[in-house]
Amino acid sequence: MMMKKFTTTMFALSICLYAGAQESVDMAAVQKIRKEGLENSKVMNLAYHITDVSGPRLSNSPGLKRAQDWAIKQFNEWGLKNVHLEAWGNFGKGWQVEKYYAATTLPYYHPIIASPKAWTPGTNGPIKSEVVLIKADTITDLDKYKGKLAGKIVMFDQMSNAALQNSYKADAVRHTDEALEKMAKDTLQVRRGGRPAGNNNQMAMMLKMRETRAAMVKLLLEEKVGLILTYARGSYGTFFTSNGASYALDAAPVSPELEVSSEDFLHMLRLLKGGEKVEMEAEIKTSYFDKDPQGYNVIAEIPGTDKKLKDELVMIGGHYDSWHSGTGATDNAAGSAVMMEAMRILKSIDFKPKRTIRIALWSSEEQGLFGSKGYVTKHFGDSKTMVLTPDQKKISAYYNLDNGTGAIRGIYLQGNVAAGPIFQSWLAPFSDIGAKTVTVNNTGGTDHQSFDAVGIPGFQFVQDPMDYNTRTHHSNMDTYDRLVEEDLKRSATIVASFVYNTSERAAQIPRKELPTPPPATAARP
Amino acid sequence: MMMKKFTTTMFALSICLYAGAQESVDMAAVQKIRKEGLENSKVMNLAYHITDVSGPRLSNSPGLKRAQDWAIKQFNEWGLKNVHLEAWGNFGKGWQVEKYYAATTLPYYHPIIASPKAWTPGTNGPIKSEVVLIKADTITDLDKYKGKLAGKIVMFDQMSNAALQNSYKADAVRHTDEALEKMAKDTLQVRRGGRPAGNNNQMAMMLKMRETRAAMVKLLLEEKVGLILTYARGSYGTFFTSNGASYALDAAPVSPELEVSSEDFLHMLRLLKGGEKVEMEAEIKTSYFDKDPQGYNVIAEIPGTDKKLKDELVMIGGHYDSWHSGTGATDNAAGSAVMMEAMRILKSIDFKPKRTIRIALWSSEEQGLFGSKGYVTKHFGDSKTMVLTPDQKKISAYYNLDNGTGAIRGIYLQGNVAAGPIFQSWLAPFSDIGAKTVTVNNTGGTDHQSFDAVGIPGFQFVQDPMDYNTRTHHSNMDTYDRLVEEDLKRSATIVASFVYNTSERAAQIPRKELPTPPPATAARP
Repeated sequence: MMMKKFTTTMFALSICLYAGAQESVDMAAVQKIRKEGLENSKVMNLAYHITDVSGPRLSNSPGLKRAQDWAIKQFNEWGLKNVHLEAWGNFGKGWQVEKYYAATTLPYYHPIIASPKAWTPGTNGPIKSEVVLIKADTITDLDKYKGKLAGKIVMFDQMSNAALQNSYKADAVRHTDEALEKMAKDTLQVRRGGRPAGNNNQMAMMLKMRETRAAMVKLLLEEKVGLILTYARGSYGTFFTSNGASYALDAAPVSPELEVSSEDFLHMLRLLKGGEKVEMEAEIKTSYFDKDPQGYNVIAEIPGTDKKLKDELVMIGGHYDSWHSGTGATDNAAGSAVMMEAMRILKSIDFKPKRTIRIALWSSEEQGLFGSKGYVTKHFGDSKTMVLTPDQKKISAYYNLDNGTGAIRGIYLQGNVAAGPIFQSWLAPFSDIGAKTVTVNNTGGTDHQSFDAVGIPGFQFVQDPMDYNTRTHHSNMDTYDRLVEEDLKRSATIVASFVYNTSERAAQIPRKELPTPPPATAARP
Repeated sequence: MMMKKFTTTMFALSICLYAGAQESVDMAAVQKIRKEGLENSKVMNLAYHITDVSGPRLSNSPGLKRAQDWAIKQFNEWGLKNVHLEAWGNFGKGWQVEKYYAATTLPYYHPIIASPKAWTPGTNGPIKSEVVLIKADTITDLDKYKGKLAGKIVMFDQMSNAALQNSYKADAVRHTDEALEKMAKDTLQVRRGGRPAGNNNQMAMMLKMRETRAAMVKLLLEEKVGLILTYARGSYGTFFTSNGASYALDAAPVSPELEVSSEDFLHMLRLLKGGEKVEMEAEIKTSYFDKDPQGYNVIAEIPGTDKKLKDELVMIGGHYDSWHSGTGATDNAAGSAVMMEAMRILKSIDFKPKRTIRIALWSSEEQGLFGSKGYVTKHFGDSKTMVLTPDQKKISAYYNLDNGTGAIRGIYLQGNVAAGPIFQSWLAPFSDIGAKTVTVNNTGGTDHQSFDAVGIPGFQFVQDPMDYNTRTHHSNMDTYDRLVEEDLKRSATIVASFVYNTSERAAQIPRKELPTPPPATAARP
C-alpha cells in the first residue's frame, strides 16, 4: 500500500445499504474451495518465495525481476494460460543496495541501524568524518557552511523534540466485533484532496521551510557533502523507509543520504547538541538499473468456458513491488501470495469458469499505483478523459488485497450500494472464520482505485490491522516472520470463493454511475 | 539486573505485616526534598552522561572506566566526601567491539542486525563464506563436518519452530491499582534453588544436548571456523545480548560468535532449509583489556554529623555496569542516575545528616553481583561463613534501584516484617505521586541481596515495569530514549526522602534474624 500523500476532507453521504433479494450461493463449490484453501494451503510457501527467496522488490530492481520470473514459472507449472510479463509504460531506473556499513567511531564505536534512501547514490568507497550538525532556519543561515562540508557527514537539527514514547498500546490488533458492527453501519466517506481550511500561516511556514530545505539540498550537493543523515520514523530497531531521489532516467544528481533509525539518530543529535565530538565511518554502495526503463505487471489466466461469457473477465490482483529495507512481506507479498493461492485453489479443484479469471501482480504501486493505472488505461480506459474501451464493459469486477497479513473480515463497497446484498450472501459461508462485514465505505491508497476510476467495480477487502501501521508498512521489519499462516489461508479461501461466484453469476456485478473526470480547477495542489 | 539463572520453587509463608506505632516524618524536610527533586531535577543530564557520553559499560571495559571517571568528577563537584574508586577483587578481562559489519551477499545483499557475543574474538579481518547449516543431534553426527569448516560461517538448526508472534500486548505497562493492592497483601515467597521434581528424562536429555554442544564448540575451534551465528531472542529489530566466552584472564580460546537478531537469523535458516545457497561477508574486531584485572566500585559520601551516630551508615546504590549492545539505559543507568540524583538533592538542600550517607555504583553485577558481594565481604562479612565484621552492626540499611526507568511505586521488605510500618509512614507523603505499596515479599537478581545475605536490611523498590522485560533488559535497544523523565524524578525524590529518614531515625532499621549459612548439601546444582 502506498503512502497517502494528501490531506483529505471528509463528506458524509447518507447512503444506506439496499437489502435486495437473496443471492444464491453454490455451497458444494464453496465446500471444495474451503477444503483446498484451509486444509491444503500452499500460501506460506508462495510467500516464502516472494519474500525470502526474491528479496526486496523495489520497482525495476533485480529483486522484483527475480520475483516476477518465479511467478511466471509458478503460474505455468499450475497450468494457467496467457502467462506473461506485460509492460504498462515507462517507469525509470531500478536501484538496489550493494553495501551498507555505518558506525560511530567517536565518542566510542557503535554500529548504526539504517538504510540508504531509495535511489540515492553511495559514498564512493569508505568515508570517515566528524558529524556536522547543520543549524539553519533560513537560506542566509547556510552561508556559514560554505566551503566547509566537502566529504563531511552531516545531520540536521530535526526531531529534537521527539521523545520516543514507551508503547503502552499493543503493536498488533484485530478488529473487535464492535468495530466491525460500526463499520457495517458506516455512511460513505468521500475523500477529496485539497488543502485544509484556515491554515494560511502554516502553509506559508511550510513553503518557507521547503524553500530553505531545497537551498540546503543544493548547497550540500555543490559542496560535495559525504553523506546526509536523516531521521527515520520508528522505534526499538524498526525504522520506516522511503525514497530520497527521483527514479527518472534523467533525474538530477543528489547527495548520498542515509535514513537512520530513531535511536541512533537521536543518540548522535543529543551528543552534538551536548557539545561532544561525534565521528562516523560509513561505506555505502548502490546500483542503478536503466537498461530497460519499462515497468511490467505479471498476468495469468484461467480461461472462461461459457460460450457467451468467456470473453468477460473477473480480475484479482495485488501489488508485487515493495520498499527496499525489508522484504515487503505484509506490503505486499501477503496480498500477492493470497491472490496467487486463490488461483491455485481454483485450478486445483479443476474449476472451469464461465467468465475468464485473470490475476495481475502489479508493479510500481508504491510510486503511485503506476502498474495498475497503466494497465487499466491500456485495457479499459483513461480516467483523465473518461474515454473508455469496449473491454471496460466486459469486466465484472476487480478484487484487490493490500492491507497486510490480517485475515479478511469483510469488504469495502466503495460506495457501490447495489453490490452490498450480493457480497453479504457471498460472505455468509465464512462467518465462522470471522468474515461477515460489508461496509459501504471507501478505502484508498491501492490498486482497486485504478479500476474504480474508470467505472469498473473495484474492491479492496477489510482486513485485521495486525501490526501493519505500527511495525511493518514500509519498514525494515516487513519480513516473512510477520506473516500469519492462518490469516493468509482464510483470505485466499474467501477470495477464491468470491472469484468463483463472480465468474458464475448470471449478471455482472452492478456498477455505480460513471465518474465524471475532475475539472481542471479541482486539481490537487 | 542480572539474569536469573536457576529454576526456583516457591514456598509461601504466611507472614503478615505488623501494624506498629506510627513513625514520625519530618514534613518540612520532605517538602524541601520534593521541591528540589521534582522542580529542579538534574536526573536526565546525569543519565545522558552515563549512557550517551560514556557508552556501553561492560565490566572492565573502557566505557565503564569513562563512566566511573565522570562519576568521580561529578561527586567531587557536588562536594561529596571520601570520593574514590574502590577495588572489590579480581574480575578478569574487559572487552569491547571495535568493528561490526555483517551482511548476506547471496541470494541478495542484506545487512544483518546483530552483535558479537561479549568476550568473543573477532574475525581477524574481512571474511566471506557460504553459510553452512550444521545439523547434529549426536556427537557422531559431527564427523561429517570434519575438515570442511575452516574459515566457514556456520549456524545451527536452532529455533526452527520459533514463529515470531505478532505482539497483541503492549510492550510497556504500569502497575495497576489492583496489582499493587495484591502485592500489598502478598505473603512471603521464599525462592529456593533446586532442580524441579520429576523430570529425570528432561534432565538426561539436557545433559546430552550439553555434551553434544560442548563437542561441537570444540570441533568448531579445532576446525578454525570463521564465525558462528547464534539466534538472539527479541523481535522487530530488538535483540537481547549475552556473553559468549569467559572473561577470566586464563580463559580458553573460543571461536568468533555473532548473536543475530531473530529476523535475520530465521531468514537465513529458512533459506538454508529451503535449499538456497546463502553467502555472507563479515568483519568483526573486538579488543580485550587485561592490564588491570581488578574490578572497581565508585564510592562517595555525605559524612554524618551526629556525635553518636556519624560512624553509622545509610547506604544507597545501583549497579553501573551494563551489557554491550545498547548503552545500558534502563539496566542500569536509570538506577545509577536516580541514586546519584538523590545524593545531589540531599546535598543541595544542605542536609547535614546524623548518620553518614554513602553511595556505591557497583560493577560486575551482570556477571553475578560481584561488585556488591566483594564490597560487602570486605566491609561487613562473609555470607558463606557468616563471620561478620564490627561494621556490620553500624549500617542501618541499604537501598538499591535496578528495575528500569519505571517510577517507584513502593518497596519490597524482603521478609523484614518489622520494617513495614516504618516504610508505610515514609511512603505516605508520596501517595499523590503513586508510591504507597509495602510488600513483605522478596525480589531478587540484584545487589541488595549481597547485603541481605549478611543480615543487613537490604531493600529494592517496587517499580513500574514499563518495557523492561519486553524490550530493554539486556537488549540493543536499552538506550537513553527509553528513560522517562517524570519517573526518574519521582524515584530520586522518594529515595532521597528514605535516605533522609533513615539517617535521622533514632534507631536503626530493625533486622531480620541472621541467616544461617546454607549447608553444603543444599548447594545449587
